[in-house]
Amino acid sequence: MHKSRLGALVIDCRTEDLSAATAFWTGALGYDVAPGEPDPDGRYVILTGPGGELKIILQKVEHDSRVHLDIETDDIEAEVERLVGLGATIVSRIKGWVVLEAPSGHRFCVVRPQRPDFAANANPHA
Amino acid sequence: MHKSRLGALVIDCRTEDLSAATAFWTGALGYDVAPGEPDPDGRYVILTGPGGELKIILQKVEHDSRVHLDIETDDIEAEVERLVGLGATIVSRIKGWVVLEAPSGHRFCVVRPQRPDFAANANPHA
Repeated sequence: MHKSRLGALVIDCRTEDLSAATAFWTGALGYDVAPGEPDPDGRYVILTGPGGELKIILQKVEHDSRVHLDIETDDIEAEVERLVGLGATIVSRIKGWVVLEAPSGHRFCVVRPQRPDFAANANPHA
Repeated sequence: MHKSRLGALVIDCRTEDLSAATAFWTGALGYDVAPGEPDPDGRYVILTGPGGELKIILQKVEHDSRVHLDIETDDIEAEVERLVGLGATIVSRIKGWVVLEAPSGHRFCVVRPQRPDFAANANPHA
């Protein structure tokens, strides 16, 4: 049995510098920059919300700005197989995560657990 | 004083029929279709997650499929003014909500409260 759940919302920003996006989205949503962020190469900034609110990640990208979902799981291969069974297609395998496309045309990622209450609250799959 | 918060995630689907998107996203995320959904004209399907998880709305659109954020608030005009002060621009005013664009290029909406714990847990703004 494995588990999965909506793990994070990723705000993909087509920019050379995430600082303006970080200032806007923290202010707009009432989120804080997580301790230790941004990462050394400035590609990501992780934001944390109050209470158990969804994790939000700002990501520097070269494609157009958009928003995508990350599904968190304790078994990436089993979860990818489950999602393909629901109609998703595999776009690419990156080290540590897999990019898929939903039948609705949205790209999303399957990633390792992101939120501290994953084990207690994620959805079990037989 | 007014309050605001991330209220919902809207999965905009370029399709004539949301049923395939509904089947996929409920299965992928472990969400349920809210009672009474879809609405009579089939333009929206509201999904509810376990516990206090973020509300997700599937919306039928004519532009490309994408994901956008809804910021919920008890004072739409005050919240729009606050967000414009943070750098957002107003795209359009629809009856009942306002579409804005973030400095990062993402469109999002300012809407009325969406989640049952809004009053207790939204962020206050002086």
